[in-house]
Amino acid sequence: MEQNAQVEHLVDEITKRVQARMGEVGRGVESSSDIPKSCQDVGVKALSCEECKGCHVNRPDDVRNFVKLGVSRIAAGTGHDRPASDLAQYIDHTLLKGDTTRDELKTLCDEARKYQFATVCVNACNVRYCAAQLEGSSTKAIAVVGFPLGAETPAAKAFEAREAVRNGAAEIDMVINIGALKDKDYTTVLNDIISVVQASAPTPVKVILENGLLNYEQKVIACTLSKIANAAFVKTSTGFGHGGATVEDITLMRDIVGPEMGVKASGGVRSEADALKMLDAGATRIGASASIEIVMGKMQGKTKSKAVAGGY
Amino acid sequence: MEQNAQVEHLVDEITKRVQARMGEVGRGVESSSDIPKSCQDVGVKALSCEECKGCHVNRPDDVRNFVKLGVSRIAAGTGHDRPASDLAQYIDHTLLKGDTTRDELKTLCDEARKYQFATVCVNACNVRYCAAQLEGSSTKAIAVVGFPLGAETPAAKAFEAREAVRNGAAEIDMVINIGALKDKDYTTVLNDIISVVQASAPTPVKVILENGLLNYEQKVIACTLSKIANAAFVKTSTGFGHGGATVEDITLMRDIVGPEMGVKASGGVRSEADALKMLDAGATRIGASASIEIVMGKMQGKTKSKAVAGGY
Repeated sequence: MEQNAQVEHLVDEITKRVQARMGEVGRGVESSSDIPKSCQDVGVKALSCEECKGCHVNRPDDVRNFVKLGVSRIAAGTGHDRPASDLAQYIDHTLLKGDTTRDELKTLCDEARKYQFATVCVNACNVRYCAAQLEGSSTKAIAVVGFPLGAETPAAKAFEAREAVRNGAAEIDMVINIGALKDKDYTTVLNDIISVVQASAPTPVKVILENGLLNYEQKVIACTLSKIANAAFVKTSTGFGHGGATVEDITLMRDIVGPEMGVKASGGVRSEADALKMLDAGATRIGASASIEIVMGKMQGKTKSKAVAGGY
Repeated sequence: MEQNAQVEHLVDEITKRVQARMGEVGRGVESSSDIPKSCQDVGVKALSCEECKGCHVNRPDDVRNFVKLGVSRIAAGTGHDRPASDLAQYIDHTLLKGDTTRDELKTLCDEARKYQFATVCVNACNVRYCAAQLEGSSTKAIAVVGFPLGAETPAAKAFEAREAVRNGAAEIDMVINIGALKDKDYTTVLNDIISVVQASAPTPVKVILENGLLNYEQKVIACTLSKIANAAFVKTSTGFGHGGATVEDITLMRDIVGPEMGVKASGGVRSEADALKMLDAGATRIGASASIEIVMGKMQGKTKSKAVAGGY
């Protein structure tokens, strides 16, 4: 209890200081407040979303209407009735190794287009090529920033993010300043996130916490600061050597950020069962290189991604 | 032979195109042409450097005179007569993990000051702090850029480098665009290096090749492009998961770049014997986190670095 009180005090204190310094920026169209309140809002048959929570499964045409209105993600229910084929819309098809070639990127984009993954997640120097490859499809290109160490300056991360958006990135996945977080230098951590959110606005920003390097309290604080900074998502891991997503972490992150933000499970998600566990725990996005294995789990279980995995 | 001819043709072709585009920039005071030609040049007793090649070992006071004149590295001879205590001047004392704290950086700088290492090598967000910590000492702070994947854009790397120099970085260690190199997109690789060299000038730039991901020809080409771009050094590895320095690679890199450039051995150099092997093969700088173990090898062999290793 005493620990919870301390954390709450911290959140209050940070919120107060930040409110004096910034306005609302950068959440884009990712938050639930931007999503029509019920199916009626987009002119489809009755049965409110509060009752259903499964329109992405049961009413694919209606979901397409939502998408036409600008929604980029449909909130899911408990997930227990979600078929594997439907998982594609949650997946960032990911290739982040430093020696990625154009052939591998082409394969990644072809696969993403074929299976209708939400995005491809690539390094900043590759986002323009992928955005061009994906033109005319529902899949978007997203770029990582300050990746994978998070140890650049706020200005450098902001520059990188702004340029990635100009080059076609529809979302930015940034790494938090982990050293500053461990130093309890929360102002630096917060300003670092704010600088990327503002540089990317209105493009949504995900904040990679690299949970494998953090203790419980540091995860709580990182989620808190990400929310204050108006990031769109918190994300578990880089997938580069410090462990991956766990059900416990997803549950905690969802609890701290509430329903308004996205939670992305990344690192070690390699099967349909892994993905469903994460979604059930509160994730709204999956970062994976084994994306095809995930979506084909119940359908064929044989096709493997041709793109080489990049730490994920 | 046919392969050699192809590589030579490539070098000629690239050289021609580059000469039309840029001038001489960014080599700082690192090249041998900037070093006084013999001991006489700095007013010390006769015995020319051509005969001796061991003044760093046999005449430490004279070496200090060189340093006062602005020389930041003394070229070595065969190295067989180099005592362990003298290795410090070749060492970049390195800490690059993403969750590095201020306490660890303080320890790193204290150790570097005590043992008179050439530099501390840190992430860009930490270079200002380390430069301040090292003020008044012979040790400099240097920053990595585009690290460790090398998969940022040329503009983002240039921004990061320029800011790091403003923050006190005395050298920049950048990672080459490995994907572009594998794609045979040599123009992109070259422009990437040039952008950092120009943004950093006159601060010297090292180009990290990440040899563990490259084949023989790619190493040759990467050295060639680094030299054309007026980088000060080529460097073997990031130390993040793709193998480290080998005698074979150092020999090759020294052969390709000639005597004018520096060659830095990094990744897996953990003892005095490792370091001496690298220097004997042609390295002029060592990147290490086991720096104290290296220099204490013959002296005590007990003191260990307190700073936590960062992939090196």
